[in-house]
Amino acid sequence: MHAYRTHHCAALNAEAVGENVRLSGWIHRKRDHGGVLFVDLRDHHGITQIVADEDSPALPVLDKLRVESVVTIDGEVKARSEGTVNKNLPTGAIEVFARGITVQSEANELPLPVAGEQDYPEETRLKYRFVDLRRETMHKNIVLRSKVISSLRRRMEAQGFTEFQTPILGASSPEGARDYLVPSRLHPGRFYALPQAPQMFKQLLMVAGFDRYFQIAPCFRDEDLRADRSPEFYQLDFEMSFVTQEDVFQAIEPVLAGVFEEFADGRKVTPAGEFPRIPYKEAMLKYGTDKPDLRNPIEIADVGAHFEGSGFGLFANLISQGKKVRAIPAPGTAEKSRKFFDEMNDWARGEGFPGLGYATRKGGEWGGPIAKNHGSEKMDTLADELGLGPDDGLFFAAGDEKDAAKLAGLARTRVGESLELIPEGEFKFCWIVDFPMFEFDEERQKVDFSHNPFSMPQGEMEALETKDPLDILAWQYDIVCNGYELSSGAIRNHRPDIMYKAFEIAGYSKADVDENFSGMIEAFKLGAPPHGGSAPGIDRIVMLIADEPNIREVIAFPLNQRAQDLMMGAPSLVSDRQLEDVHIQLDLPPEEADDSAPVADVVEDDS
Amino acid sequence: MHAYRTHHCAALNAEAVGENVRLSGWIHRKRDHGGVLFVDLRDHHGITQIVADEDSPALPVLDKLRVESVVTIDGEVKARSEGTVNKNLPTGAIEVFARGITVQSEANELPLPVAGEQDYPEETRLKYRFVDLRRETMHKNIVLRSKVISSLRRRMEAQGFTEFQTPILGASSPEGARDYLVPSRLHPGRFYALPQAPQMFKQLLMVAGFDRYFQIAPCFRDEDLRADRSPEFYQLDFEMSFVTQEDVFQAIEPVLAGVFEEFADGRKVTPAGEFPRIPYKEAMLKYGTDKPDLRNPIEIADVGAHFEGSGFGLFANLISQGKKVRAIPAPGTAEKSRKFFDEMNDWARGEGFPGLGYATRKGGEWGGPIAKNHGSEKMDTLADELGLGPDDGLFFAAGDEKDAAKLAGLARTRVGESLELIPEGEFKFCWIVDFPMFEFDEERQKVDFSHNPFSMPQGEMEALETKDPLDILAWQYDIVCNGYELSSGAIRNHRPDIMYKAFEIAGYSKADVDENFSGMIEAFKLGAPPHGGSAPGIDRIVMLIADEPNIREVIAFPLNQRAQDLMMGAPSLVSDRQLEDVHIQLDLPPEEADDSAPVADVVEDDS
Repeated sequence: MHAYRTHHCAALNAEAVGENVRLSGWIHRKRDHGGVLFVDLRDHHGITQIVADEDSPALPVLDKLRVESVVTIDGEVKARSEGTVNKNLPTGAIEVFARGITVQSEANELPLPVAGEQDYPEETRLKYRFVDLRRETMHKNIVLRSKVISSLRRRMEAQGFTEFQTPILGASSPEGARDYLVPSRLHPGRFYALPQAPQMFKQLLMVAGFDRYFQIAPCFRDEDLRADRSPEFYQLDFEMSFVTQEDVFQAIEPVLAGVFEEFADGRKVTPAGEFPRIPYKEAMLKYGTDKPDLRNPIEIADVGAHFEGSGFGLFANLISQGKKVRAIPAPGTAEKSRKFFDEMNDWARGEGFPGLGYATRKGGEWGGPIAKNHGSEKMDTLADELGLGPDDGLFFAAGDEKDAAKLAGLARTRVGESLELIPEGEFKFCWIVDFPMFEFDEERQKVDFSHNPFSMPQGEMEALETKDPLDILAWQYDIVCNGYELSSGAIRNHRPDIMYKAFEIAGYSKADVDENFSGMIEAFKLGAPPHGGSAPGIDRIVMLIADEPNIREVIAFPLNQRAQDLMMGAPSLVSDRQLEDVHIQLDLPPEEADDSAPVADVVEDDS
Repeated sequence: MHAYRTHHCAALNAEAVGENVRLSGWIHRKRDHGGVLFVDLRDHHGITQIVADEDSPALPVLDKLRVESVVTIDGEVKARSEGTVNKNLPTGAIEVFARGITVQSEANELPLPVAGEQDYPEETRLKYRFVDLRRETMHKNIVLRSKVISSLRRRMEAQGFTEFQTPILGASSPEGARDYLVPSRLHPGRFYALPQAPQMFKQLLMVAGFDRYFQIAPCFRDEDLRADRSPEFYQLDFEMSFVTQEDVFQAIEPVLAGVFEEFADGRKVTPAGEFPRIPYKEAMLKYGTDKPDLRNPIEIADVGAHFEGSGFGLFANLISQGKKVRAIPAPGTAEKSRKFFDEMNDWARGEGFPGLGYATRKGGEWGGPIAKNHGSEKMDTLADELGLGPDDGLFFAAGDEKDAAKLAGLARTRVGESLELIPEGEFKFCWIVDFPMFEFDEERQKVDFSHNPFSMPQGEMEALETKDPLDILAWQYDIVCNGYELSSGAIRNHRPDIMYKAFEIAGYSKADVDENFSGMIEAFKLGAPPHGGSAPGIDRIVMLIADEPNIREVIAFPLNQRAQDLMMGAPSLVSDRQLEDVHIQLDLPPEEADDSAPVADVVEDDS
């Protein structure tokens, strides 16, 4: 018989009744029914009920052990009596009558309980993560994360992608977020940086002739932390050669839709091939954001034309000044009180906007000052154009285009949430496309890149040479799911001539480009294929599937919100010798309290 | 028609003759046959021959373009004439007659050629790695690496392992190799360290209740570099709960044998389930090393007993002093000259040993001073015991046990190589087991751990309490292939009581243990399963399969031997602001020449 187990703790069922078995696991729960002890024995796979009575030599041992001790039980599988069968458990039809026991590890008192998953402060949970991870939800989340990543890999390979490792000890980049630095021992005064993303490397892999690269890539940004941000995070980084934007979409939709469907557990997922492609301009109009939550059925409309010369002077004036008025339908609000509408207005003011207008409607009858001044007939026309029914109210966001869009977008979400219009069990994907290549920088009174200077402009050189820069679109796209941007991506500009021209439009000379981006430009001068890609955030994908709002719930050993590992004591003090080795010394702020955990210890490793 | 290609460059064969196709790729080679131009067009997948003659508008364009320019060719598939079919190429039966061409990227003069793979200095190859990677061998190596890793993952999952990510921003450890440090911005004066291996984390995953962990884990050691060492390397890190040493072997043998078989390309591989298990002591005797190359058929024997009171006084004396004499057979050396034997002796002296004795044999006749003094009859007895034939010579390594074993081991390899006894096309695996738990430290005149203090001693507490420490073995093992250690591993000591006792034997108090290893000990006090694992080196596996002696040949973007990335310019200077942010300043040695590449540039990334 195996030293530790003949079966794992989710394996035994009615068919095994009568067998002599050996199980190992943690004592999850103990229930003493007067001389009969019931123990839930837990391992990675599940739970089996162990029974010991006064005939069992295991009884006194189990009786004394604390929960979370690890034991090996020898016993006989017995059928549970009719009334005690647990149909929610794969092993619910049986129990194991303990005949022998070996204690593998005695548990001291626990810093937090495992069974029951009582709420505990995150700091305690992270300090004792190895106990916290035993809890059902965390265990499930981390296994889910592994399965999602494994599924992503399988699906990427099925699409003809090959996984490559790119360096983690990289070069510091003057742009983007703050780098984590690594001082060099062999090169005094010089530093490596951890990659914020393997962007240059993946493009160089294309220049090197590999067609379809992907990587479950660890990325690092030394930014201030939030619930959905970790200093260390993973991207499904990918890049393809000889492709159009449409090829990128067709390659990646089956991967994303596939992985969400696999773990949807009944939730609906936008099918591959049916991700809507929404131009940036349209998204800003209809959803007031380039990260629309398409589960929300509300669509914003520009209704400025309706208010030209309107009796509602405020809007009429704004329109005459070239400002915008956007309508946010509030469907089925006939029975909503005035308070509902007023509170929305208050909320908008709280957010720093001048206010959110509204018109109520019940059985076709309009209410509120805007409708009153604008007139019922004109309101009917407006409502008909928007396809609204007789009990659908309206909110209005007005101001210059940017502000009106932003307020309308926020209001759309808030109205959708208040009216419970956003269905839970659904994942709605879309692509936002046709981002503008350039924008007018009001502050500096000049044309500048609006997003990524390294995306290929639509129309390539011809567009740059012939079009108004502000009309030029880029082959750039975002993947959005339920209002979260999973990633931006682009068809890259692989042509030095087009790159020089694009930078010229944004006011940079050839010398500027050569000085700042020589590596990439020089590589592109040695034979570069057209290429493009993206990098969906993996932690975000897992958060969406697990329905967890906090990134630390889907990472086995995350740093806390102060970027500390409380369990291992990182970051920690290091020896003077270590600092000397890498040619640095501390340069501490005058009065910094020591607020960190003690230096951790080590275990010698396999090598 | 697709913008760039209807087929990739390895897709077209005789069946496609007559089709109009579009191909994209790099101009690999150009051959001008007087008005007819032949171009090998290359992409990730392969090569297709393009033809252009004076009827083709592509001719003047192709004529002018440098090799490695990227083009899109429109043309018609034609059968090659009988004599020009290339059977070594999947596309060798056809060529594409070019009707149109689009230049995607014009290549300047190349820093190193792609076609032909002419030898080039490593520095040039690494600086222009994106060109170097286009070369056939590098392209093949990197794709092989990807496939090996993908296969390892698939096989680990098939064995029930789950992949988890462990932190890369970790805690510095006072032991082991030198850490790469990362200064903390939020915690002045404190540092993260990049993991040398995820040893603690994988053990904590077991304590957390996950049964079978693995990870293709990036590891970092700031050590001086060698051909087979990179600062950043990957391990197939794994750990299992509720297992014996035998379970570990049974889980991992199919993975290793499987992956080697998959890519063996005709080479023989030790089948899973048949990896010999060689006790450490036996390995040191028979092979003079704990990393034996089992392809070498030579086995060392201890022949000291034969020389007790021998006419060969040198050996007789050594034996009377308790020293060892080891014999290394040199099979089939009847025709070898005296010079062959003398040169081995010279080599041994060059290595710092007193010398390597020998006895020649031809048709059963002995030669050389040892045989002469020891006597033919006694030599016959010795040779018979070793199972040697009448034309098999012998070398002798003598000295104290350690030196004799070491010299015998080196001589075994040298003899094997000289006599070409080591077959090329074979991967021979073995486990080295039963490492001693303790050894006598001659210098400090005390018992100490011989390898890993955290391995479980065989016999557990009872052995520690009742046996001579120097007789206690550990559940510790190495995986060896063709003389390379792929990894050590162990069943871990998960019992605080046994750990305190083991450290006590090595002269450390309970307080010492608590002070230095509190994290692990405390975790083990909250319910720990028996567990064990290992971590085979992935770069080494790929090097063996690719038959490459240099680790940089199997890494896409390696640092050079001075730990620099010449392509991206890492490590680089960083701004004062960056140093201030993380509370450090430089502490430079007085006169350090600036020997590094310029600061690299960046491309904005997907996020």
